Amino acid sequence: MSDKGKTSAGNFFEDFKVGQEITHATPRTLTEADAALNVALYGSRFAINSSDEFARSIGLPRAPLDDLLVFHVVIGKTVPDISLNAVANLGYAEFRWGVPVYPGDTLSARSTVLGLRENSNKTSGVVWVRSIGTNQKGEMVMDYVRWVMVHKRDPAAVVAPAVVPKTATAVAPSDLIVPAGLDLRAYDDLAAGSPHRWEDYEVGERIDHVSGITVEDSDHMFSTRLYQNTARVHFDAFAGKNTRFGRRLAYGGHVISLARALSFNGFANAFRVAAFNAGSHVGPTFGGDTIYAWSEVLEKAPLPGREDVGALRVRMIAAKDCPCGDWPGRQSDGKYHPAVVLDLDHWLLLPRR
Amino acid sequence: MSDKGKTSAGNFFEDFKVGQEITHATPRTLTEADAALNVALYGSRFAINSSDEFARSIGLPRAPLDDLLVFHVVIGKTVPDISLNAVANLGYAEFRWGVPVYPGDTLSARSTVLGLRENSNKTSGVVWVRSIGTNQKGEMVMDYVRWVMVHKRDPAAVVAPAVVPKTATAVAPSDLIVPAGLDLRAYDDLAAGSPHRWEDYEVGERIDHVSGITVEDSDHMFSTRLYQNTARVHFDAFAGKNTRFGRRLAYGGHVISLARALSFNGFANAFRVAAFNAGSHVGPTFGGDTIYAWSEVLEKAPLPGREDVGALRVRMIAAKDCPCGDWPGRQSDGKYHPAVVLDLDHWLLLPRR
Amino acid sequence: MSDKGKTSAGNFFEDFKVGQEITHATPRTLTEADAALNVALYGSRFAINSSDEFARSIGLPRAPLDDLLVFHVVIGKTVPDISLNAVANLGYAEFRWGVPVYPGDTLSARSTVLGLRENSNKTSGVVWVRSIGTNQKGEMVMDYVRWVMVHKRDPAAVVAPAVVPKTATAVAPSDLIVPAGLDLRAYDDLAAGSPHRWEDYEVGERIDHVSGITVEDSDHMFSTRLYQNTARVHFDAFAGKNTRFGRRLAYGGHVISLARALSFNGFANAFRVAAFNAGSHVGPTFGGDTIYAWSEVLEKAPLPGREDVGALRVRMIAAKDCPCGDWPGRQSDGKYHPAVVLDLDHWLLLPRR
Repeated sequence: MSDKGKTSAGNFFEDFKVGQEITHATPRTLTEADAALNVALYGSRFAINSSDEFARSIGLPRAPLDDLLVFHVVIGKTVPDISLNAVANLGYAEFRWGVPVYPGDTLSARSTVLGLRENSNKTSGVVWVRSIGTNQKGEMVMDYVRWVMVHKRDPAAVVAPAVVPKTATAVAPSDLIVPAGLDLRAYDDLAAGSPHRWEDYEVGERIDHVSGITVEDSDHMFSTRLYQNTARVHFDAFAGKNTRFGRRLAYGGHVISLARALSFNGFANAFRVAAFNAGSHVGPTFGGDTIYAWSEVLEKAPLPGREDVGALRVRMIAAKDCPCGDWPGRQSDGKYHPAVVLDLDHWLLLPRR
Repeated sequence: MSDKGKTSAGNFFEDFKVGQEITHATPRTLTEADAALNVALYGSRFAINSSDEFARSIGLPRAPLDDLLVFHVVIGKTVPDISLNAVANLGYAEFRWGVPVYPGDTLSARSTVLGLRENSNKTSGVVWVRSIGTNQKGEMVMDYVRWVMVHKRDPAAVVAPAVVPKTATAVAPSDLIVPAGLDLRAYDDLAAGSPHRWEDYEVGERIDHVSGITVEDSDHMFSTRLYQNTARVHFDAFAGKNTRFGRRLAYGGHVISLARALSFNGFANAFRVAAFNAGSHVGPTFGGDTIYAWSEVLEKAPLPGREDVGALRVRMIAAKDCPCGDWPGRQSDGKYHPAVVLDLDHWLLLPRR
Repeated sequence: MSDKGKTSAGNFFEDFKVGQEITHATPRTLTEADAALNVALYGSRFAINSSDEFARSIGLPRAPLDDLLVFHVVIGKTVPDISLNAVANLGYAEFRWGVPVYPGDTLSARSTVLGLRENSNKTSGVVWVRSIGTNQKGEMVMDYVRWVMVHKRDPAAVVAPAVVPKTATAVAPSDLIVPAGLDLRAYDDLAAGSPHRWEDYEVGERIDHVSGITVEDSDHMFSTRLYQNTARVHFDAFAGKNTRFGRRLAYGGHVISLARALSFNGFANAFRVAAFNAGSHVGPTFGGDTIYAWSEVLEKAPLPGREDVGALRVRMIAAKDCPCGDWPGRQSDGKYHPAVVLDLDHWLLLPRR
């Protein structure tokens, strides 16, 4: 007796309906181990996530978990329902972090389908979802819109007319969430590792984060399993042989976290990733590639009612096997330099003087 | 002055006596880190082990550690005394899990030699042991019979007549241990990830767990070190060159845990591995192999005095570099399909309606 | 607008001044996860670090973190300021461990420049620093002198006359620190894994630790990131192609921890590394190398006022792709056997009868 429908093959394009609400499986309690593994996987050195003492000195109860770890866990939960049959991850918008996550918190995720648009070739379509991650108290820890191209199960399936949601091109500074209780008056630059505060950065300033870090297949699979992300392209070398790349693909979020960790050299005081305005996984990363990164300051914004913290809008580019002293990015022909793998427009919070 | 007997070379066949009691070294306190690493190593997604909130909703104090992690830690402790000089791991029987293990619990292990039978070639023999893992309160967490073929130090050594213990061919459902306090009335299928409960499975039903996961040498060594398992075949690539396989061998338990994690797709509600009836590591797994799995329901059993939980006896087969849609297993000639690496007959607990 | 000095290129030889005090960045709270990862990375089996119950039986509040983990974390903090531009790590002296470190403790590090001596070729010089690691109460957890050869930024830079500090050739037994509250009267040999106590070792005795363990690139990068050690030679395979080795180099501390873990077989009761007298990373270790180790007892010392604990001074040699039954070390020509990668003279504490 063969399979009687016990396994999930994930949703295909024609399975989604605009307005549909999806509760994702496997709530997960994050612990001190996730904090340590985040250090071990990426080498992150931000003091706020490394030291309970430092975190308490700025008004938090203890070291919060890395903002990107929260991202990875929430997005991982959505994969079996949203992107198991994805052709490509197309974009992020209105991507904000809410209350900080601490060891012991349990995260859950749910999504609402915002829009659907079939591709002209009828074999796939674009799905827009708003996903929300919450802690055990129901507080929002992360809220974002993501769109992915998803295969149709049956090209002949007839689908509803296109609904394309409008998303903001950037998160407004007034919408950035500053953790409750945060008080940077006693912020310790020496412990944090840099004398450079919000005032010291200029719009247009570029920073080469200098170092590179090589990704092994074992590394990216380890992190992606930790996030309970089941996207098959990351884990199956046997099936990978028959894909267009001929091999496994590293989870794009692994590259984001590596670039963020590298950016410590230049942004040591950027203690919080507050929002993504836009992000694109420009090219694939494979085991053996070495990731470098550089950043450009796009905008500076004070935050309403705060004298101690300001926001920097930063475009961070990651490139593989290509040190970033020559700022690889978009070229004059509008195409990306072939080494670029990530282009991320995001808001960072820094202490002010 | 050379080695004066400070190092242990492990026990050889002629060192064992029937009735001998062995206390294994290195009690180990398991923590939240072991829980997180179990996720990171295998990608396991069972809600009971992932979420303290989910665990509390079914009457447990917090998320228990993965049942197979308990197995790995207990068996790891026995290796230096029982199987350091093993030729092969032959079988498991009467293999039961006892009280759940929680972060903070300290596990110890002891074994009793049940039987011994020299092989006709006089170079090795089979050793049967009953091993018991206990927590810091002395409560049984795991109890099993295992038999291994162990080298003789000296083929000329004369040994006692064979004693071959009888072991049960299966664990009786009435002997399966349901954790104290467990109450599945509020069991949340959405959080657990499947609507399929005990009643929904049929004897003879086969489930292909679909996905595959590639094992890197770094991965299996990482897990096996975590379990403080010292079997040399897993760790030494230099010596591995001169073995019949010409390389390191992955710890068989790594494959069991991978197959269990893959089985989430089809058995998301199988919240507890309660017993192994029989298990065989049919073939070796090496770094680079991709593991797939499928299962067949062998038997369904209600549990005495319980309306909320039932047991499924399941045969799970893992195969390497071979997706399991065609159910690789024993072939008509009685031999296994060459891709099969694991054949495990075990009892799972699931919620009833 | 290019880089405006936000990134650190580390200190070069001419940046250091004798007497200079440096506070290193990123205090780090160590947790149970660091304990588990230490097991997973090296396979360490010492009962004191594995079991809270065992630790309590000898008077400690719970299992302390592995002594070498403390070393790795402290030395990792010093890298961005001291050795980012190092040519080579030359030596260690007066290297002592202080109060034990427990999960929840936050470690910080500071250094004082003790000496400076330019090399005759003017392209580099030797920097001696005393570094101190402290916990959140300001208690010393580790105190050592280390000297490294560091590049000059500008060979033409004129530097001060040489100051070469005197360091002790060995730590005196009376300076070894026994953890407060330690009481070995109830020490359990069976749990610890060996009947051999301090009295059983003889000066001149050699012990082959037998097993080998293969290092993968993924493994040594994982540990080195965990310690937030940023030395580029360990992480960047792309840049590594253009180095004299043509590849990444494993962090030398990874080899120390592997050798220490292997030394369990022979020194299971050596529950604490109390001091390094001298240490040298004799040769490089790369991904794929298999590490073996052997030890020689150099000296035995009772400890003042203690009947329950004694010190063994041990020279431990690690060699790669070379089992150590033939004691590879210094050869008759004064050079090391080509397989040797580590020569470490250190003090271990063991229970007495």
